[in-house]
Amino acid sequence: MPGNNFGVLFVVTAFGESHGPALGCIIDGCPSGIPLSIEDIRRELQRRRPGGGGAATSRAEADEPELLSGVFEGRTLGTPIAIIVRNTNQRSADYDGLKDIYRPGHADWTWEAKYGIRDHRGGGRSSGRETVSRVAAGAVAKQFLAGYGVTIRAWTSAIGGVQVIGSEDPAFSLDEAESNPLRVPHQESAEKIMSFIDKLRSQGDSVGGVVSCSVIGLPAGLGEPVFGKLDAQIASAMLSLGAAKGVEFGAGFEAARGTGSNQNDCPVPTDKPRLSSTVPSLRYQTNNAGGMLGGISTGMPLEFKVAFKPVPSISKPQQTTDRYGAFREVRIQGRHDVCIVPRAVPVVEAMTALVLADLLLLRRCDSM
Amino acid sequence: MPGNNFGVLFVVTAFGESHGPALGCIIDGCPSGIPLSIEDIRRELQRRRPGGGGAATSRAEADEPELLSGVFEGRTLGTPIAIIVRNTNQRSADYDGLKDIYRPGHADWTWEAKYGIRDHRGGGRSSGRETVSRVAAGAVAKQFLAGYGVTIRAWTSAIGGVQVIGSEDPAFSLDEAESNPLRVPHQESAEKIMSFIDKLRSQGDSVGGVVSCSVIGLPAGLGEPVFGKLDAQIASAMLSLGAAKGVEFGAGFEAARGTGSNQNDCPVPTDKPRLSSTVPSLRYQTNNAGGMLGGISTGMPLEFKVAFKPVPSISKPQQTTDRYGAFREVRIQGRHDVCIVPRAVPVVEAMTALVLADLLLLRRCDSM
Amino acid sequence: MPGNNFGVLFVVTAFGESHGPALGCIIDGCPSGIPLSIEDIRRELQRRRPGGGGAATSRAEADEPELLSGVFEGRTLGTPIAIIVRNTNQRSADYDGLKDIYRPGHADWTWEAKYGIRDHRGGGRSSGRETVSRVAAGAVAKQFLAGYGVTIRAWTSAIGGVQVIGSEDPAFSLDEAESNPLRVPHQESAEKIMSFIDKLRSQGDSVGGVVSCSVIGLPAGLGEPVFGKLDAQIASAMLSLGAAKGVEFGAGFEAARGTGSNQNDCPVPTDKPRLSSTVPSLRYQTNNAGGMLGGISTGMPLEFKVAFKPVPSISKPQQTTDRYGAFREVRIQGRHDVCIVPRAVPVVEAMTALVLADLLLLRRCDSM
Amino acid sequence: MPGNNFGVLFVVTAFGESHGPALGCIIDGCPSGIPLSIEDIRRELQRRRPGGGGAATSRAEADEPELLSGVFEGRTLGTPIAIIVRNTNQRSADYDGLKDIYRPGHADWTWEAKYGIRDHRGGGRSSGRETVSRVAAGAVAKQFLAGYGVTIRAWTSAIGGVQVIGSEDPAFSLDEAESNPLRVPHQESAEKIMSFIDKLRSQGDSVGGVVSCSVIGLPAGLGEPVFGKLDAQIASAMLSLGAAKGVEFGAGFEAARGTGSNQNDCPVPTDKPRLSSTVPSLRYQTNNAGGMLGGISTGMPLEFKVAFKPVPSISKPQQTTDRYGAFREVRIQGRHDVCIVPRAVPVVEAMTALVLADLLLLRRCDSM
Repeated sequence: MPGNNFGVLFVVTAFGESHGPALGCIIDGCPSGIPLSIEDIRRELQRRRPGGGGAATSRAEADEPELLSGVFEGRTLGTPIAIIVRNTNQRSADYDGLKDIYRPGHADWTWEAKYGIRDHRGGGRSSGRETVSRVAAGAVAKQFLAGYGVTIRAWTSAIGGVQVIGSEDPAFSLDEAESNPLRVPHQESAEKIMSFIDKLRSQGDSVGGVVSCSVIGLPAGLGEPVFGKLDAQIASAMLSLGAAKGVEFGAGFEAARGTGSNQNDCPVPTDKPRLSSTVPSLRYQTNNAGGMLGGISTGMPLEFKVAFKPVPSISKPQQTTDRYGAFREVRIQGRHDVCIVPRAVPVVEAMTALVLADLLLLRRCDSM
Repeated sequence: MPGNNFGVLFVVTAFGESHGPALGCIIDGCPSGIPLSIEDIRRELQRRRPGGGGAATSRAEADEPELLSGVFEGRTLGTPIAIIVRNTNQRSADYDGLKDIYRPGHADWTWEAKYGIRDHRGGGRSSGRETVSRVAAGAVAKQFLAGYGVTIRAWTSAIGGVQVIGSEDPAFSLDEAESNPLRVPHQESAEKIMSFIDKLRSQGDSVGGVVSCSVIGLPAGLGEPVFGKLDAQIASAMLSLGAAKGVEFGAGFEAARGTGSNQNDCPVPTDKPRLSSTVPSLRYQTNNAGGMLGGISTGMPLEFKVAFKPVPSISKPQQTTDRYGAFREVRIQGRHDVCIVPRAVPVVEAMTALVLADLLLLRRCDSM
Repeated sequence: MPGNNFGVLFVVTAFGESHGPALGCIIDGCPSGIPLSIEDIRRELQRRRPGGGGAATSRAEADEPELLSGVFEGRTLGTPIAIIVRNTNQRSADYDGLKDIYRPGHADWTWEAKYGIRDHRGGGRSSGRETVSRVAAGAVAKQFLAGYGVTIRAWTSAIGGVQVIGSEDPAFSLDEAESNPLRVPHQESAEKIMSFIDKLRSQGDSVGGVVSCSVIGLPAGLGEPVFGKLDAQIASAMLSLGAAKGVEFGAGFEAARGTGSNQNDCPVPTDKPRLSSTVPSLRYQTNNAGGMLGGISTGMPLEFKVAFKPVPSISKPQQTTDRYGAFREVRIQGRHDVCIVPRAVPVVEAMTALVLADLLLLRRCDSM
Repeated sequence: MPGNNFGVLFVVTAFGESHGPALGCIIDGCPSGIPLSIEDIRRELQRRRPGGGGAATSRAEADEPELLSGVFEGRTLGTPIAIIVRNTNQRSADYDGLKDIYRPGHADWTWEAKYGIRDHRGGGRSSGRETVSRVAAGAVAKQFLAGYGVTIRAWTSAIGGVQVIGSEDPAFSLDEAESNPLRVPHQESAEKIMSFIDKLRSQGDSVGGVVSCSVIGLPAGLGEPVFGKLDAQIASAMLSLGAAKGVEFGAGFEAARGTGSNQNDCPVPTDKPRLSSTVPSLRYQTNNAGGMLGGISTGMPLEFKVAFKPVPSISKPQQTTDRYGAFREVRIQGRHDVCIVPRAVPVVEAMTALVLADLLLLRRCDSM
């Protein structure tokens, strides 16, 4: 409840500092009987690790997960699932010079303003490394969702001002996304962005970008109005990510510029069986709403985008202030990403999986 | 927890259907000793009512609140504060023809898909009328925030494609915003938008827009990483609003197009007293982050924008489907807003107040 | 969360001071489709009202409930159910003399120590009158439980030192319990207790007692180990009642005096169908455990007892202290029960219903 | 929320099966700045280990805790504190013969009825071994409480029918309790009980008992009426323990036999400074209520007792049923306590510490 706890029924509690002994999580409320192996978790953690494309940090953590409870003979028990990942490649000394300095764009000072104390090494718990716990938990949620036929796919849809060409182009391919280090689902866009990133690296600068996410196979009826709507929960999950600065669903900010007559999604009969004697099945002609109406899933694809600001650690000189209240110039050395957007992709998927797992369980309690 | 409950320590539980006997809320966890009168609540409810500008619905509810508990001799008791608002001007018969029809862009079908049943009159609980409860609760939160010197101001910053001229223009005035029915803080922009809305009304159409919000006086240290970050909670609060489709903080989606060197907010010494022997006071040279770093408030203004889609109820003919799975053409009659954005302004403020009241209480537990 | 909120999925939020405008509750998470009328709530509230037996207070409240939301055409909507009960028969002036006095055995001072302020009239929110909200909510829970075939029966099993003769006696009859004002299921015991109470009344004294409760029809599998066990939740529910001082399950404190060989409940085969291919049905030869093992229901009757201390309001003179820190003698005048145990019976049932409704919903999420 | 999570602000999430790789917990919400070392945790875990007195199991676990996060340079960071304890001395083979048998008095079948699956080795998560997580978390809570001057002391007050001589006897000494394996604070009683236990061991039987607990130094004002009262929360914490069958506060069940005139605790002036200009300090002449009134602490010692049933694992032959629904005779072999009451003492203290830490934090939010 005080901040490291996510979900109502499928609940993740996360822990860990960047340079402490380990990170990890407990998943409580995962139903019994779900197939789960350490390999399912390892696979997702590998996707989160720095890629070979050079966009990312060179801190080379093994990120080897250990499963401490909740699984017996390959199936979940219904008891809490604890997962830990040891930190093995910390170079704490890299941070000695930053102990008394508040890095621009980082949360160094706000954590001290809040807690009066912080583990300065690698940003402590404000480090992007905390997403290890999210991805591990998300891997469990994905196993649960697999049983419902739900598939989550995220990708890089923009980096800096460069927009990735979208699904309207035949060369767009989500399968492609996972095979290039930028997670850009369009070869030509990927190449263009890669040279843009190379230029920024040589300048000691960094860049932001956008992750798009699409979920298919979701049944209608997910979401808990009025405060726990599907979009409210996804928004919360996304803005809880380190560098996230915005989220939009379906047409998003573009919808604010539209009219009712061009934005409304109109129901269309389907030949699927009725939901009940009083409720028909239907689908929507368009999906401007991004898969929900009134905060409840429609059965259409859930679609949203998340904006990430640039990595604040840059080697260009910056003005800042130190613990003693004095001006300082700082150049951030060490191993940092030029752009974390590609690595945010599996994290966006993980958080989405956690929201959906929770809502699928809550859905079981909707009616008598 | 199942959806009508918001907050951890300053907790609102809301209830009410559009055409049921009443709407309202219970606020639990409001500290004792806060001055609170029925007038404080009435004032905010009045701001939410349809304005005279013609942008809004003509359902003329008195929206007279009644305070049932939690206040004694003008001060809060620390016990739950219950507030109800009777529905008095329902015209349920307006909805008889819509009983078996799923309106485009509305949540009619998704509620039935979820619950198997709905109160079709006026949209039931999916009606914008449910925000009465939010505004009443927000009025209480504002009283609490007043004791901390926190001020929340929201306004209409765009309607349709028309962007309101911003604070860089000398004619921009937040005080102006409350005096015109569109809540546009710029006279010239307001006039332009009003004629745009008139045109849409004559066409039987509706339009979306953007609400901006700014909070000043917020201390540093608010927010509960990693899942309950300040931005995560505001995002959740905003996307829980009926027609909201996106939210962004500070530079928002623009930040995704920037670089570290132009987006980082650099700390600057201040002459305010130190927070403690080990932590100095400081401020930030810029506020691209919109008032938080690492999900914790910086003490700079909290700034964000919320995109609202157009009102789905339009009198233009639309295709849809009925309960029997058949195609139907529908024209929505009755009393509807062309643009709800101006009326969303006090609701955005109310939800912001609720988030901040909760975080201010949680902040009391940060350190020994 | 801060104290007036009960349950995880079937969640009650209660409000109201003894002499404020109204008391009531919101039930959030009640599934849709359950038959519910105002009569279902009124019936339970009537059981809570003072009986004619003279054991109880003579404050004659109508206790007329009003249903403000969540029900449409006789069925629950899945939306929050708000119920209010107006206070109409307050005699606030009765309490004027007690404004600055801390009554012995009451919570007058502890509420002031906590909140710095209190509504002294009738004890404010520490009054037994707050159980109106519990009983109203419990009535809704009972409707839900009826759909599962679960029946809850509580009765007075002791008053003062007088033990009610138990079910081993042929004259014991739970149906009898509801027809006498003491809710004693044994005619002879009832008469004996009634004369005991008459004597205490004439002495201006009061007396405690024990409520027993038995639940039949409960399926196996309810309870959320390790912290939300069935007994833990019932215990919490019972000790949240005003004068409750203890609770015991099955053999209870007697079990602490026993040995494994005489306390263990041994499983016995049944001819009911298997729960699954791997799990048989069974029952237990004895029920010393009171219907649960490891905090999970066994399918045997859930059985527990709750001890209530004497009503603290007595007209005998007592020593106490006032707001100014001075010694005072006090005789509590006004309308008070000699023994609230009979009126606690429907409240015990209501709280039990709330726990079980919540656990039945949580049970839906146990396995894939 | 689904069962392995305890507290609102000082929140423990526990995990671990008896014979899985490890047990442990995450404590979220522990304020920053509290001195905490691995030694503080180890010390409490040692108290929970089997003593030398022979009353207890001979499974000899090292119970060596590892601190994975949340502490930096000897102080808590305000971030989640993760603690794990490896299982190293499992003898899983001991349980092979019990895989398909439901042991009398154990939760074997109820867990299968609930989850359809269980880790049968050592009882899985229904094992008393799960209290390792509670004790580790409680050790952290005790560090927090130490800063408030709160001291918790529990002891064995009865075993079987043998009542320990109480504090009215000059030979009663709580310091003695920790120095004998039965945790009996009275030498003569301890000897008597020890020979009683020896006799039961030779008969292959087990026995129950009572733990008493007393907390001193607690300020007035703790507890969250009406559902989160101090006694309600302690009751919940206690009944969440494996073999607990009852709890009573102060005079407890005896109070139910009393009258108002002999049970009421009367306020007495003190010479301590006033709490505020409007609220005096006071104390109570007696403490029949056990340290709370209206569910809020009075500042008098918090006093309660917990009844534990006998250990269900006995080597005497018992009738039971197997997975195939057939009658079976079973004699439980392996390493089992004759009486777990002495080992429950530190667990009772740990759970008490968790409740009080949570309530002390909630208390910070009571008034403006």
